Amino acid sequence: MKAKRCPLAILLILSFLSISTAAATRKTQTRKPCKSMVFYFHDIIYNGRNAKNATSAIVGSPQWGNKTILAGQNHFGDLVVFDDPITLDNNLHSNPVGRAQGFYLYDKKEIFTAWLGFSFVFNSTRHKGSINFAGADPLMNKTRDISVIGGTGDFFMARGVATLMTDAFEGEVYFRLRTDIKLYECW
Amino acid sequence: MKAKRCPLAILLILSFLSISTAAATRKTQTRKPCKSMVFYFHDIIYNGRNAKNATSAIVGSPQWGNKTILAGQNHFGDLVVFDDPITLDNNLHSNPVGRAQGFYLYDKKEIFTAWLGFSFVFNSTRHKGSINFAGADPLMNKTRDISVIGGTGDFFMARGVATLMTDAFEGEVYFRLRTDIKLYECW
Amino acid sequence: MKAKRCPLAILLILSFLSISTAAATRKTQTRKPCKSMVFYFHDIIYNGRNAKNATSAIVGSPQWGNKTILAGQNHFGDLVVFDDPITLDNNLHSNPVGRAQGFYLYDKKEIFTAWLGFSFVFNSTRHKGSINFAGADPLMNKTRDISVIGGTGDFFMARGVATLMTDAFEGEVYFRLRTDIKLYECW
Repeated sequence: MKAKRCPLAILLILSFLSISTAAATRKTQTRKPCKSMVFYFHDIIYNGRNAKNATSAIVGSPQWGNKTILAGQNHFGDLVVFDDPITLDNNLHSNPVGRAQGFYLYDKKEIFTAWLGFSFVFNSTRHKGSINFAGADPLMNKTRDISVIGGTGDFFMARGVATLMTDAFEGEVYFRLRTDIKLYECW
Repeated sequence: MKAKRCPLAILLILSFLSISTAAATRKTQTRKPCKSMVFYFHDIIYNGRNAKNATSAIVGSPQWGNKTILAGQNHFGDLVVFDDPITLDNNLHSNPVGRAQGFYLYDKKEIFTAWLGFSFVFNSTRHKGSINFAGADPLMNKTRDISVIGGTGDFFMARGVATLMTDAFEGEVYFRLRTDIKLYECW
Repeated sequence: MKAKRCPLAILLILSFLSISTAAATRKTQTRKPCKSMVFYFHDIIYNGRNAKNATSAIVGSPQWGNKTILAGQNHFGDLVVFDDPITLDNNLHSNPVGRAQGFYLYDKKEIFTAWLGFSFVFNSTRHKGSINFAGADPLMNKTRDISVIGGTGDFFMARGVATLMTDAFEGEVYFRLRTDIKLYECW
């Protein structure tokens, strides 16, 4: 009766395997994103003479700084609020698909580094909802990773990582960031 | 020997099914909150004459702003720190059940929008612990969703979405936000 | 033919069990961290006379404050940007293993409380990557919990809780925080 070899023992082992697999799902997950997107956003900082075009402004600065010129010491302590257009390509004049809104602050005296807290806000036929970001931006590195800490609407409960790349930097007034978003938790 | 029909193949299929189910658990989750709560919080901004009652203060502003009057251009660039009472109903004078603490910043020149980073801090018999929030608040919309990015104590490791509604707005000194919190990850 | 006792019914039950286990994994999780770490970080605030040693600076303040002295009313409204060395022990002069970068803001008039948004940034053989934090810090309490809201590199997609303890506090210029990080989601 070979069929006896399909015993409870095997079932239990199988069951155990299934359970283990379930429990380990998160840990052994291959790092394959459930959603990938690439966007660009464009920041034009207010310098006292570009009120019309500016998309951001210095709102906090250290004792040695002011509100129209980024401070000495690698802008340490400058806090900038922004409402930047998001585009699908690297052209400032392309049709914006959303807005990047929030703040960055320069946080190191010796080199340029920043800390970011912001959202991508979409309200188009393509995307509705927001993606929320936070993290350190050592902006002299070619690529830097920050966290996707949450999302709403189309991006409900999203989590992931966004890789930032400085795509252009002109004087101290304009920069453009390429943002490669990879979501690893999608609902 | 019909028993041979309980073969390894079936076990493997079953095993595969179990694994797939485990892996898909998160994705097929119905969007049913594991915890829902409604709170109100009340913000009285310092205007130079209400030091005693004020629960918030402008601490950063653009070049064209100051610390006692919200700036022109839809308050773009104003950064406000707050410690606001949380109540269970919409009455400012109800017994506070906690404090909403953190900041908001106005981040658009053309209309009122804000970005929020704050916590609900509870220390009562009812709730102990904190809920941390971040996200964009396009405050002219009737409802806006921000992210619950974490929690501690009773709200250990919480994630979810909070829907904000402006419940009252009086001049530029007082506003009240209704906050519908829905947690989708509870530990 | 006893082998018939290995029927579909049992398989289905088993399958159901596996599925249930998978679905419940998150909720029944014991609160056992997948990673625990202890670090110290050291904050020396700029006071107008310590430019060389300072690791942080006041960049926002309420109307009654300034940029070199923490404001009255328990520093309510002071916003501080920092780039603090992280060490493995409580010695400021130990070899830093990373930098704590971000901001804190004092947010209560009656007692000292703060709100924190920052990252631990590592770039050594030991650790590469960042851990992102946010949360309320009622700093008069012996221990306070904030959220680990994300991570990158070695800390890819991390979530957890960090317990802060004030390990030293000297005048209003230096403080040292012990940070016990417990991650409950590791990838």
